[in-house]
Amino acid sequence: MKLVTFDHAGKTQPGVLKGDSIVSLAPAGLPTGRHGDLLEILHGGKQAMDAVRAAASAPDAVTIPLDAVRLRAPVLQPGKIIGIGLNYIDHCREANLQVPEVPVLFAKFPSSVVGPDDDIVFSRKICSEVDYEVELGVVIGTKAHKIGEAEALDHVAGYSIAHDVSARDLQFREAKQWDHGKSIDTFCPWGPYLATPEDIPDPQNLDLRLFLNGQELQTSNTKNMIFSVARLVSFISQSITLEPGDLIVTGTPFGVGFSRNPPIYLKDGDECVLEISGLGRLRNKVREID
Amino acid sequence: MKLVTFDHAGKTQPGVLKGDSIVSLAPAGLPTGRHGDLLEILHGGKQAMDAVRAAASAPDAVTIPLDAVRLRAPVLQPGKIIGIGLNYIDHCREANLQVPEVPVLFAKFPSSVVGPDDDIVFSRKICSEVDYEVELGVVIGTKAHKIGEAEALDHVAGYSIAHDVSARDLQFREAKQWDHGKSIDTFCPWGPYLATPEDIPDPQNLDLRLFLNGQELQTSNTKNMIFSVARLVSFISQSITLEPGDLIVTGTPFGVGFSRNPPIYLKDGDECVLEISGLGRLRNKVREID
Repeated sequence: MKLVTFDHAGKTQPGVLKGDSIVSLAPAGLPTGRHGDLLEILHGGKQAMDAVRAAASAPDAVTIPLDAVRLRAPVLQPGKIIGIGLNYIDHCREANLQVPEVPVLFAKFPSSVVGPDDDIVFSRKICSEVDYEVELGVVIGTKAHKIGEAEALDHVAGYSIAHDVSARDLQFREAKQWDHGKSIDTFCPWGPYLATPEDIPDPQNLDLRLFLNGQELQTSNTKNMIFSVARLVSFISQSITLEPGDLIVTGTPFGVGFSRNPPIYLKDGDECVLEISGLGRLRNKVREID
Repeated sequence: MKLVTFDHAGKTQPGVLKGDSIVSLAPAGLPTGRHGDLLEILHGGKQAMDAVRAAASAPDAVTIPLDAVRLRAPVLQPGKIIGIGLNYIDHCREANLQVPEVPVLFAKFPSSVVGPDDDIVFSRKICSEVDYEVELGVVIGTKAHKIGEAEALDHVAGYSIAHDVSARDLQFREAKQWDHGKSIDTFCPWGPYLATPEDIPDPQNLDLRLFLNGQELQTSNTKNMIFSVARLVSFISQSITLEPGDLIVTGTPFGVGFSRNPPIYLKDGDECVLEISGLGRLRNKVREID
């Protein structure tokens, strides 16, 4: 099942994507909270998800053509976005950083989220070395506190494509804390949909690709992760409770812009296309402002 | 006005602290969201805050003795918690780190929040060098996007005491990203109340103190901040939109445990008491678990 959040007729609402159309979940009367997105449904647990399945296959379901809506990020304001640094060996090497023995955590502030129909926007007054990073996004479905690796995937609501846009000039200045450069408004595009686990039986065998203006700059497979999704969820949950709607962006493979000679950075008018097997395509334009 | 979130009769609810009692805002019918805390009231803006003032002074207000409730953090799940590193010169020196030219941002994940009646809890399987840090907490009241320093304080809902508990062994390992060591569950106690700006006319002239088991280990004044509250709000808002309920923890002064010889780290049974002028006292016990 492909879960989406979308705008239609002036209203942000949750839905289920089926081919080229969307079944709106608005008539199902599920709670949608302040944002109108999927978050409250995720908080509703198995019961809410059963209601979603029933609504999506109801004979009187309200269907809207995909091209008549604006897709938003599946969850507009995750409770937290945990980034994983250095989770592919070839990326550690290109970044000249040690392969970590335990996962390296950082944050993207939730205000950086945009959707598949939005632009990546920045001003050169703030940052200039804006880099791209394709990553598998993992969304938590049920609270995870001190759970083992074997049961970790039971706590996952689904998978999506995440773009960990990163301003290298901010990331590496002074005290070298990455969060600011990774949390600029619009620097966390994700979507286009949240694929539930029955659609993604093995999250460790997914091809990832990133194209900049049509040129392929990153290509790998999630089997190359140093720490698997299950290991990440279990590791984090030992000390940081994961909650429904939390988003883990699981690290990027080789091929980022700052390690190239000459470096490649995003600029006005660029188009980024990110693809992951079974998760569709996330396309965002780059727009520079004053 | 002193805003609080508290548990009473099995219900988490917002209230106004008046001396030794609390006026419950539950009868006022204000929206309280999933958590029952102050967050939805902050999202309600000036109109909701006017309703709070009216409810707090209504002749038929329902009053509950302070000692009959359990105080919670004023906002249980801020949209984001932005930490400021190295914001007092004497703390930069004791940490052997350069005085920054622009604010250093990091994250405390919102799941680390606890209130004034909760314990700081950790296991030595996760971390052992657990340090204390008293800080002025600033809560955003209205959305702040690219605002100037002169108008920055207009976007502040109020002030509180924040304890930026920090596991130094996690903070300084490998890629040296601070977030994990600062985001362990229970590592962001804050409260006991949110004082609105009319009670704190000058946030840059507040005494801060931290006592560990009765011994004063930190003492300073917010006038010693490198970047003022107004500068921090303005700076962050240039690239990261601040939203109602967001919490900024504005940095700690000299006197932390890891810079001492020998170092002082928190251990089972310790009691931390943090005081800031006009913001009361935040007391948390330390509890070690397996």
